[in-house]
Amino acid sequence: MARSPYTTVPPFDGSGAEPGDAPAPWGATTIVGSRTPRVDGYDRVSGTAVYPSDVALPDMLHAAILRCPRAHARVKTIDASEAEQMPGVRAVLTGVSPEANIPWFRGREGALSTLFDAHCRFAGDEVAAVAAETIWQARDALRAIKVDYEPLPFSVTADDAMKDGAATVFDKGNQPGPPATYQRGDVTKGFAEADAVVEQAFELATEIHSPLEPHGCVARWEGRRLTIWESTQGVYAVQGDVADALKLPLASVRVIGHYMGGGFGSKLEAGKYTIIAALLARRTGRPVRLFLSREELFTCVGNRPGVRATVKIGARKNGTLTAIQFSCVGTGGAYSTNGTGLVDWQARDLYRCANVRTESTDVFTHLGPERAFRAPGHPQGSWVLEQAMDMLAARLEIDPIEFRLRNLTSVSQTHVGNPPYTSTGLKQCLVDGARQFGWEQARRAPASTGPVRRGVGVAAGLWIGGGAWPPATVVLKLFPDGSVNLNMGASDIGTGTKTVMSMVVAEELGVPLDRILVEHADTATTQFTNPSGGSKTVPTESPAVRDAAIDVKKQVVALAAGQLKVEAASLDLRGGEIVSTADGAKKLALTEVRGLAERGVVVGVGRRGPDPRVKVVNPFAAHFAEVEVDTRTGEVKVLRFLAAQDSGRVMNRLTYDNQVFGGIAMGIGLALTEDRIVDRVHEGRVLSANLHDYKLPTVMDVPADQACLPIDLNDTACNSVGAKGLGEPATIPAAAAVANAVAHALGVRVPDSPISPMRVLAALGTRQPRG
Amino acid sequence: MARSPYTTVPPFDGSGAEPGDAPAPWGATTIVGSRTPRVDGYDRVSGTAVYPSDVALPDMLHAAILRCPRAHARVKTIDASEAEQMPGVRAVLTGVSPEANIPWFRGREGALSTLFDAHCRFAGDEVAAVAAETIWQARDALRAIKVDYEPLPFSVTADDAMKDGAATVFDKGNQPGPPATYQRGDVTKGFAEADAVVEQAFELATEIHSPLEPHGCVARWEGRRLTIWESTQGVYAVQGDVADALKLPLASVRVIGHYMGGGFGSKLEAGKYTIIAALLARRTGRPVRLFLSREELFTCVGNRPGVRATVKIGARKNGTLTAIQFSCVGTGGAYSTNGTGLVDWQARDLYRCANVRTESTDVFTHLGPERAFRAPGHPQGSWVLEQAMDMLAARLEIDPIEFRLRNLTSVSQTHVGNPPYTSTGLKQCLVDGARQFGWEQARRAPASTGPVRRGVGVAAGLWIGGGAWPPATVVLKLFPDGSVNLNMGASDIGTGTKTVMSMVVAEELGVPLDRILVEHADTATTQFTNPSGGSKTVPTESPAVRDAAIDVKKQVVALAAGQLKVEAASLDLRGGEIVSTADGAKKLALTEVRGLAERGVVVGVGRRGPDPRVKVVNPFAAHFAEVEVDTRTGEVKVLRFLAAQDSGRVMNRLTYDNQVFGGIAMGIGLALTEDRIVDRVHEGRVLSANLHDYKLPTVMDVPADQACLPIDLNDTACNSVGAKGLGEPATIPAAAAVANAVAHALGVRVPDSPISPMRVLAALGTRQPRG
Repeated sequence: MARSPYTTVPPFDGSGAEPGDAPAPWGATTIVGSRTPRVDGYDRVSGTAVYPSDVALPDMLHAAILRCPRAHARVKTIDASEAEQMPGVRAVLTGVSPEANIPWFRGREGALSTLFDAHCRFAGDEVAAVAAETIWQARDALRAIKVDYEPLPFSVTADDAMKDGAATVFDKGNQPGPPATYQRGDVTKGFAEADAVVEQAFELATEIHSPLEPHGCVARWEGRRLTIWESTQGVYAVQGDVADALKLPLASVRVIGHYMGGGFGSKLEAGKYTIIAALLARRTGRPVRLFLSREELFTCVGNRPGVRATVKIGARKNGTLTAIQFSCVGTGGAYSTNGTGLVDWQARDLYRCANVRTESTDVFTHLGPERAFRAPGHPQGSWVLEQAMDMLAARLEIDPIEFRLRNLTSVSQTHVGNPPYTSTGLKQCLVDGARQFGWEQARRAPASTGPVRRGVGVAAGLWIGGGAWPPATVVLKLFPDGSVNLNMGASDIGTGTKTVMSMVVAEELGVPLDRILVEHADTATTQFTNPSGGSKTVPTESPAVRDAAIDVKKQVVALAAGQLKVEAASLDLRGGEIVSTADGAKKLALTEVRGLAERGVVVGVGRRGPDPRVKVVNPFAAHFAEVEVDTRTGEVKVLRFLAAQDSGRVMNRLTYDNQVFGGIAMGIGLALTEDRIVDRVHEGRVLSANLHDYKLPTVMDVPADQACLPIDLNDTACNSVGAKGLGEPATIPAAAAVANAVAHALGVRVPDSPISPMRVLAALGTRQPRG
Repeated sequence: MARSPYTTVPPFDGSGAEPGDAPAPWGATTIVGSRTPRVDGYDRVSGTAVYPSDVALPDMLHAAILRCPRAHARVKTIDASEAEQMPGVRAVLTGVSPEANIPWFRGREGALSTLFDAHCRFAGDEVAAVAAETIWQARDALRAIKVDYEPLPFSVTADDAMKDGAATVFDKGNQPGPPATYQRGDVTKGFAEADAVVEQAFELATEIHSPLEPHGCVARWEGRRLTIWESTQGVYAVQGDVADALKLPLASVRVIGHYMGGGFGSKLEAGKYTIIAALLARRTGRPVRLFLSREELFTCVGNRPGVRATVKIGARKNGTLTAIQFSCVGTGGAYSTNGTGLVDWQARDLYRCANVRTESTDVFTHLGPERAFRAPGHPQGSWVLEQAMDMLAARLEIDPIEFRLRNLTSVSQTHVGNPPYTSTGLKQCLVDGARQFGWEQARRAPASTGPVRRGVGVAAGLWIGGGAWPPATVVLKLFPDGSVNLNMGASDIGTGTKTVMSMVVAEELGVPLDRILVEHADTATTQFTNPSGGSKTVPTESPAVRDAAIDVKKQVVALAAGQLKVEAASLDLRGGEIVSTADGAKKLALTEVRGLAERGVVVGVGRRGPDPRVKVVNPFAAHFAEVEVDTRTGEVKVLRFLAAQDSGRVMNRLTYDNQVFGGIAMGIGLALTEDRIVDRVHEGRVLSANLHDYKLPTVMDVPADQACLPIDLNDTACNSVGAKGLGEPATIPAAAAVANAVAHALGVRVPDSPISPMRVLAALGTRQPRG
């Protein structure tokens, strides 16, 4: 089964229609679309919600992992005999433990490793693990494991790794393959037709995954069943990985992921920690808790890879783009999955352009792995393209918004046959967004002549996915008192999935929200779905939930028709009542349907996909930022932000806004503060491996004046619910909008991220973006 | 929804056919019927199985209940102020706590109480409850609660309670209604036609429920959801009771009942302890564990009510029965549900007889409640009828087996229209059982002239239920690797339900047992079924499981047909492979069906019932016992035992035997040792309220030489699987067979249970059964 929503070759053409028997598109809704607080809000804020890291089982052991302290080394010998004798220690696993001889493939072709590989490829690679009565005893024991490392030369930048004679990460060399290229038309011809051309180099820092809840799990064996409580975006993905690694039937691996404190793409699969916890639990016959430390997160669980990129774009005087040429070099570290994939997507498909050429070079380095990170590649591509668009607009003396509007497209240019998008709201995002933001006035206002300059910027984006990632199966159980259990495999990764899906049930069956309980994210008791990633959850699950509700409705109506001795077609279930389709008159309350009580429950099954891949469903966004830059200190402050989003139907205005605000905050972090600093000289370790040195934006860095403007074009073609993905498009253009605003404020561009005070001052000092 | 499988008026006509779309009856099976060890055997014997009483949650409090020490009293005042201040105490509930004002109706009409009723109706009625950090602190605090009781006069025997001026249990008086009577034909005429008549009085002691795992639960609130881990036979029944008591939507009450250490009818519903635990958990905001003590079990959780009964039967010289007259008086205590119901069933329907009259009198007393107890009423009725049958056979000088064979029937005489049983294996039980037991030889052998006498006895029985207790819904989930999750609401009450249902899946899909995992007994994640009681589980669940497996099979075959581009009708799933229906040739392995991987899982839904009530499905049994009686000590030793059972198809020969051996042991306890002794004079308390004074049979009391002989008449009419209930018929005639063997050994009858040494010696001394 596909293990990622992010597939670049052939391009993920996204979702498309539901199967032939899908329900008819929704019309107007009453509950769906409203501002509805989380159904689990009380649980979350009161602390009664049990996150995987809260799971405490009787007799539970605590585990910790010993990691290689160097970017590249070989384990010559390892001696755990002292550690094994330490107080409270119950098990030690190393590379020589027989059960740990498990192949571990999470990278590109040729990037094969083992659970505790003697060949350590980054400062953080797993070397040993301990389970003990307390976490402190486990960590003490780690320090008592004697490892003799042979230090090896290393490369922690793509440039170093590409040099002749560079130390190799895998035997095949440091490039997983030739650079990925894409071409349509003829860029040379295109640039020749251009009246103006800009070319600019950019460099983006690596952004590290830092969800609130660390990665990890609790593992328990009961006979032939292994149960894992994991902080994950996809219980079925973890189940598959674990079954694969431990050679177990899928049905024997129960993965439970109720609640989880953020994943953003870094929890789409099992980690080595998952397998290690399972092995330690099997060895000891006791449950084992293994959650990573914050420092481990900054080192091992994934990142949005930085890239060095150059873009060259040309346009006619009238603003029509004639050519886009894009190239980038980046590294996904030692065990990347996607690397620099999708960084070029904005260049390929955001604007209408006949001549496009992109080249993406991906290099193995001795660094922690890249992982999917909220719209993989897209914010980086947006940073590059959207700044260049502003530069070219300035060259052409066209307003940046006007320039973008002149180059919109309603078809996908990359997909074969240039199929149309089911809906394309980018024009409305730009126009309506500009109006609500007060773009005209703000853009024309003086940047001030004092030391603190003000500027506004815009950036647009599209997300390659967001249509759906089928399949999904959902089971809905209606009790005789009219209350409902909704049973679905999907994780709620903090985005309000449980709330939105409950609203779908409430809308379809007329059952109040407080009588709907959700069971989810449990491979033993709920049904299959792919991980919550790629902005797939609402467009994948909600049609399936609706399908299940309609199945329940049909059965209840049939029971009522039998009871009333009328044709089923003459009845409908609306607002929790059996009514006449003719005049809407009430015939029976749900609780009066005798067959319902006689059956105990009515069970409905709903499905989504697999899809015939005939449509392209992409969400769009335009972001507007206003900033202040202190030219004395180089500090940038975001004053206000507006995000106009075309993600189709708004399922819940409250969670919609919150998704978008989160996307803005993440974009501000990417633009202004987040930076993985690696020691390039000594041991190749991440130096900013804590919350002090790695600067995540706080509430002080986010403007109080932020707004979300949903654009809903009534997309009845994307699926039966009309919603497209939102999570990722909400962050794609955010950083670029900030960068464009900074450039507007300063009159000079800071092309590299983060736009730190030092870079601002350097740019002001040189008036040259790149010294 | 029906809350009990035991409904006497109108008689529970048992089950019958599945709905019109039920699958065709099974033919020969390969896995079903074999001797298959429990799928959860390792878990049970290794201690990894987590029973509800093993559940330990973080921050869990422990609760205990204060019970009235007198059979009848009124709480004048209650003062918990000192208890509330004691170390570790977190909450005290009494009858004056506002949230405890909950009506509690678990008895007959008019038998309404409240959670902590100030009017205490037996020595054990709930008066207060405490939650504390430890169970010891909770019990200490109970002792500090000051209760001022007004003692009231009481009756702890049916005779006392029926006297004029007896203290009343409920305002309406001590009889729930007029005696229940049944009549067909004319007994006076019948006795006139008889050549021989016997009349005999019997008295049976009350048998107390004493499952290995005490009654109780752990309760936890998470926001609007209440989760209860309860030792129960039916999670949906508990869910309904709790939702009802606490006014919650059904979907908000999650009841989990994985594993449970025996119920035998006493765990078919929520207890007051369930509600008390939930209230204490809500009050404290912490999980609460409340399990009863062994002493509380002997007092409060239910019993098989003793009866005083008289039977008169007559027959012609040729052995044809002409009349049966039966009457009994008994008491279900203060809060009985079924009372003396069904005690007359053997007299009504076991043998062909045109003239029958029965009368059952039920009386409220100041005693702990009667509850359903493995074939309610039936062993008592068998004790009475089957001993009288032996007496009449002796009078007619006909062999007891021959006498019974002359009076068999293949139709139900009680049900309107005298419908036939779907199968009637009693003749084979008697004939084949006698042959295997060596009845002829053993019966004729001398009883010995020494002090130790030997004898053999037989008894027959039928069980009113055992057809099914629909509805049931089952969900089956097939993973792409061919492993399966079976999801069903049914509890496995120790009888091997998980094993048998896995075998049904294995049989139907050809998936090996070790790739089938069962999720069950969880109202949130599994589907509705009635409690595991009334021997309903196999006949109710296994057709539903089979139906679900067939649903999965159909979908997989359709996917394979699409892949192979052939008609679905040309393919079948057999032995885990897609084969051609024409020649059985393999077409695809299950794992090669691409659509299976593309869907993630294939989900099948199966159902059983509600039934059209057109058939009578009853199991039958004949039991054979050989005993030794020491005429010097009065001790009875059961030497060997054979149980011939007609319960239709044998699903698993190993669990079948175990069910039967358990039934034999229980019958031996009823016959020889078990006796609830109540203080009739002082405070009306149970005196034999511990495992020392209440004599359950141990392994020393059960013969090593016991055998089970299944009779399978290939009943294709009872349901699509062909199995009838077994649990209860396995114990119905056991005690009577022992009693008849004792009478055969001694030449004198001990009509009252238990047949204790004192009663044996008394009978030998007087040569009169009742002094």
